[in-house]
Amino acid sequence: MNSAKVFFVTKRFYSGVASRVKAQKYVLTKYFQGEPKNTDFKIIEEDLPELKDGEILTEAEYISVDPYMRAYMVGYKLPVDMIGGQVAKIIASRNETYPVGKYVTGSFGWRSHTICNPENLKGKPGFSPFTLLPDLTPHPVSLALGILGMPGNTAYFGLKEICKPKPGETIVITGAAGAVGSHVGQIGKNLGCRVIGFAGSDEKCKYLEKELGFDRAFNYKTTDIRSALREGAPKRVDCYFDNVGGEISSTIMSYMNKYGRVAVCGSISSYNDPQPPKVTILQPAIVFKELKVEGFLVDRWINRWEEGVKANLDWLHDGKLKYQEKIYEGFDNMVEALVGMLRGENTGKAVVKVK
Amino acid sequence: MNSAKVFFVTKRFYSGVASRVKAQKYVLTKYFQGEPKNTDFKIIEEDLPELKDGEILTEAEYISVDPYMRAYMVGYKLPVDMIGGQVAKIIASRNETYPVGKYVTGSFGWRSHTICNPENLKGKPGFSPFTLLPDLTPHPVSLALGILGMPGNTAYFGLKEICKPKPGETIVITGAAGAVGSHVGQIGKNLGCRVIGFAGSDEKCKYLEKELGFDRAFNYKTTDIRSALREGAPKRVDCYFDNVGGEISSTIMSYMNKYGRVAVCGSISSYNDPQPPKVTILQPAIVFKELKVEGFLVDRWINRWEEGVKANLDWLHDGKLKYQEKIYEGFDNMVEALVGMLRGENTGKAVVKVK
Repeated sequence: MNSAKVFFVTKRFYSGVASRVKAQKYVLTKYFQGEPKNTDFKIIEEDLPELKDGEILTEAEYISVDPYMRAYMVGYKLPVDMIGGQVAKIIASRNETYPVGKYVTGSFGWRSHTICNPENLKGKPGFSPFTLLPDLTPHPVSLALGILGMPGNTAYFGLKEICKPKPGETIVITGAAGAVGSHVGQIGKNLGCRVIGFAGSDEKCKYLEKELGFDRAFNYKTTDIRSALREGAPKRVDCYFDNVGGEISSTIMSYMNKYGRVAVCGSISSYNDPQPPKVTILQPAIVFKELKVEGFLVDRWINRWEEGVKANLDWLHDGKLKYQEKIYEGFDNMVEALVGMLRGENTGKAVVKVK
Repeated sequence: MNSAKVFFVTKRFYSGVASRVKAQKYVLTKYFQGEPKNTDFKIIEEDLPELKDGEILTEAEYISVDPYMRAYMVGYKLPVDMIGGQVAKIIASRNETYPVGKYVTGSFGWRSHTICNPENLKGKPGFSPFTLLPDLTPHPVSLALGILGMPGNTAYFGLKEICKPKPGETIVITGAAGAVGSHVGQIGKNLGCRVIGFAGSDEKCKYLEKELGFDRAFNYKTTDIRSALREGAPKRVDCYFDNVGGEISSTIMSYMNKYGRVAVCGSISSYNDPQPPKVTILQPAIVFKELKVEGFLVDRWINRWEEGVKANLDWLHDGKLKYQEKIYEGFDNMVEALVGMLRGENTGKAVVKVK
């Protein structure tokens, strides 16, 4: 028996995993038509191999449902493993930096158990970049999928680097009660801006105004957008954080100030449409107001990932960042959670507690 | 008689203008509905006052018709003097820096004679910034309304500062045979890029390919845009210079590369529409390709105006910049010229020779 083998046996012993593990995973077998459905997927059981040197075995504790999932799956050849971020516990390890019992986040997809070599993942772009979680006590580890993870960094870098808001400016946010939107608004307030949100229910609007300190929030389903802007943004709009696309975005851009900045984070209003919808043309507003409209994916700032997490953690500790989570339960309910999030059931981040 | 008075008399004598001048001007009295019409205007005669110290009297030689004119007039309270740039000859002067016989350009509007104090105009933003023309021999002074004026600087700064093309990249231009588009394409070639144009006739396309060196030009009226892009831009599109807005722009943006840049210069496709049209939503392409879409007005670079003119003049001298002009004749034909330009009658710059 050579030394490598001894090492392996030791680690296996340490991990407490007595035998090979079976993973369950969602495989997409039909492209979404309209809203995602359970019948678009198959749940497959998969034997995992033994750990190689440097690898870890993780067990999902929380799996994320995010708007991008609806948009991206059209780009893959079927059948394909479902994408997505998760917070997972290390349950076996052959990598001393990643001991059993610690938590990691990564783009592991909708699956129960995963083997990976962290060295191949660290610093790589992805929907949910790989990280070893620090101790978040007293906060739940699920925050690594929310304000201390991809959505949190989307809010942080998108607002700071694309919108570049100055104190006193007016920021408008659509999808304002979602994981990213509710966070953007609070950063905006922390930076000294006037913050206006559009969300999908009166209850969400009340939460944004009363709990999160938005200057105004409007129910886009029951309010005339132009009147709301006149009322909420008397100095018009300098920065627009666009989570939804659609006609509301055309209206908001037509109400912006010269040299306004638009961070296009998503286009959730059109994700379930089989054909991209038609909306009022943006170019006249873009040219005459000299707007800068920029789309972004958060992994552009992968090299500054920890900066964002730290900034958000500091605000959290200082009481300047609040959060809500909508927690669905059970690995079998992934599709229900995704659809619920796309329908706007959640205030703040939607996650599935699978363990 | 004090010395100021003597100075005045001397200058008047020098100018050769024996008596006060009457100016003719176009006054817009009805907002455009669809295409501009002669009946939207009145031509008014106006007595000009005597020159004050520092002022000059100019006589229009060429007046410009540009797409922005169609778009901007909706923003003024009526009745209002028609806006626009002109090349004018100084025919009387009480300003030694601006002697009789020299030419200036400025946003004087559609009028025959103008009194101004150059010190109040120099370095001020405007559709056609005020400049004293250098000797352009052997080229006509009308170039100061084209490649050596506002459209030339629109092409120069818009492409360089917004699109930031790198050698080897692919640039697509709509309205490619117009004053700005035909110029953008040539700068693109001078910078080592692949240049694809969309224009409104086979003849224009031939001119762009054979005379101006575009790699490909397509008649947007008879070509499927997506097929044209696949054929003309096999490495897809890095920079898009958007003069027209409309559905063609949505298609082009969906065919761009990651981190593509879009300079939104105009939206001529929708200027004659009473209601802004609806087009396929841009946000999905903007976010997933992380596009930067920026509108601009050229007077943003008023402080670098001479840099642009000099660069274009150098290219002109080196034979690396060609031009065509569509010259309409007569002050009475301003509206016909504007409509013709909006219909795409022109290849290159459209101007009216009024004197």
